[in-house]
Amino acid sequence: MSYQFAERVRIVEVGPRDGLQNEAHTVSVKDRVALIERLAMAGLSSIEAGSFVSPRWVPQMAGTAEVFARLQRRSGTSYTVLVPNRQGFEAAVAAGVREVAVFTSASESFAQRNTNCSITKSLARFEPVCDAASAAGMRVRGYVSCVLGCPYEGAVAVAAVVEVATRLAALGCYEVSLGDTIGIGTPGKAQAMLTAVAGSMPMEQLAVHFHDTCGQALANVLACLEAGVSVVDSAVSGLGGCPYAVGASGNLATEDLVYMLNGLGIESGVDIDGVVEAGTFISGVLGRLPGSKLALARRVDARIGLVR
Amino acid sequence: MSYQFAERVRIVEVGPRDGLQNEAHTVSVKDRVALIERLAMAGLSSIEAGSFVSPRWVPQMAGTAEVFARLQRRSGTSYTVLVPNRQGFEAAVAAGVREVAVFTSASESFAQRNTNCSITKSLARFEPVCDAASAAGMRVRGYVSCVLGCPYEGAVAVAAVVEVATRLAALGCYEVSLGDTIGIGTPGKAQAMLTAVAGSMPMEQLAVHFHDTCGQALANVLACLEAGVSVVDSAVSGLGGCPYAVGASGNLATEDLVYMLNGLGIESGVDIDGVVEAGTFISGVLGRLPGSKLALARRVDARIGLVR
Repeated sequence: MSYQFAERVRIVEVGPRDGLQNEAHTVSVKDRVALIERLAMAGLSSIEAGSFVSPRWVPQMAGTAEVFARLQRRSGTSYTVLVPNRQGFEAAVAAGVREVAVFTSASESFAQRNTNCSITKSLARFEPVCDAASAAGMRVRGYVSCVLGCPYEGAVAVAAVVEVATRLAALGCYEVSLGDTIGIGTPGKAQAMLTAVAGSMPMEQLAVHFHDTCGQALANVLACLEAGVSVVDSAVSGLGGCPYAVGASGNLATEDLVYMLNGLGIESGVDIDGVVEAGTFISGVLGRLPGSKLALARRVDARIGLVR
Repeated sequence: MSYQFAERVRIVEVGPRDGLQNEAHTVSVKDRVALIERLAMAGLSSIEAGSFVSPRWVPQMAGTAEVFARLQRRSGTSYTVLVPNRQGFEAAVAAGVREVAVFTSASESFAQRNTNCSITKSLARFEPVCDAASAAGMRVRGYVSCVLGCPYEGAVAVAAVVEVATRLAALGCYEVSLGDTIGIGTPGKAQAMLTAVAGSMPMEQLAVHFHDTCGQALANVLACLEAGVSVVDSAVSGLGGCPYAVGASGNLATEDLVYMLNGLGIESGVDIDGVVEAGTFISGVLGRLPGSKLALARRVDARIGLVR
């Protein structure tokens, strides 16, 4: 019955991109740089730092080149940006970016609405990105969205996830992140989906990415850790709450993930106090309470003298 | 790797007592009755409905006798009240209560501060309660608090939990609920603690009770379901946020638990829409947003036309 997890889990911190992109409030370049530097200082070795998507579509990510111009980078930390195509890749390279990510979907309808093209066409766009990255000695991370459900199609077949994930790996992505974009999944289904994909490509190349929309994110991570995954995406302070509604949940909060990993005796190399501090900082910028349960608990602990 | 859970899980809804008792706002008898009736209508067959503790200590639970006088009870539903001693038991019986609960701790310091007596003395107080209940054909549920840590002592030995749980069972408690009162636990430790207790008494007599203080509650439940538990405590809308701080988390939200059980294919007999409705009702009474992630997600879903 006792768990046999990976000894070490790498957390991919997606707050500054996937998180802030889905916040109603646009955060300045200065504050985004301060957030990224705090996260790196806390020991997060993989940070999604921005995107080179048109600011017409994603105004929250405008100025990513300026973020990179100002950023004091730590050696050993990867700062990834999302690029939609070759043009975005070139802009990223010009800005000094050294790792990029590409994003498609396991759902045809979501790909159409979100990227304005079919899954196949999105993959075709990534081919020159992956080739150019490879020529430049840069790594490419792949994202698959809607792996457990789609807001337009409902259920998504596991076979579709397997196909898109393996095609991204075949293009040269060193890692493929499986995203439950709408936070609809539960642990058994999450584990079954991951296990199916890991039947067609190495588990070591897979990451899981859960949104806490229905409160399931951490339980889903636990189920996937049991299945052998060793890379988990999360966002400081649970950034990425739906811009349409006050209080709706976004990504899994990095603080709560680190708390669980620490309790399970799984190393992540992350200093939990540093992440709580980074989360408190960005929550202050957004004018609200911290979005992780741990940070909220500590506000109480401090008053009653409890060390957790 | 696939899960072998109990086919059916019984949820013990603790919102009207453990939840409301820890809210700063005192809810009227009328609204407590309305809440309990909605929860029962939603299919929750075990509801902790109040307590007969002095209103000097717990003003939120004043009027529990009146709650029972007004309550339209559903047949097949248990309405439990917490009683601290024989005197409380007699008051409960006089009010028409048919099931009671007793509460002690695995931590000596917590017992002293919370019940003003030692663990042994608290158990001695329960003996006449259990005897009188048995004579009256009533069931007694036992609670053990601080099973994964204590705010005053820090770590709590698993052996202490085993001892207190088995002593409650020996007194005649038909079920013992293991409570992580301060929400400090993580899945591996929760599972190990449950498994240890189940080594000394039947798993069927055990329930788990997690607070979501650090966001771990649902992951802890998952780990305990894997270990074979089939009774889980939770509170509608995550009631029971610490009265000392805005935003701090309380109990595991019943809505999010039911969502996970549904996804895992585990029957609970609970209608998720009914619980969401009850949670929206009581959150309105408390003047705040619903405390379950599911209810918040549905506010968004309704705007974008998504059925989750």
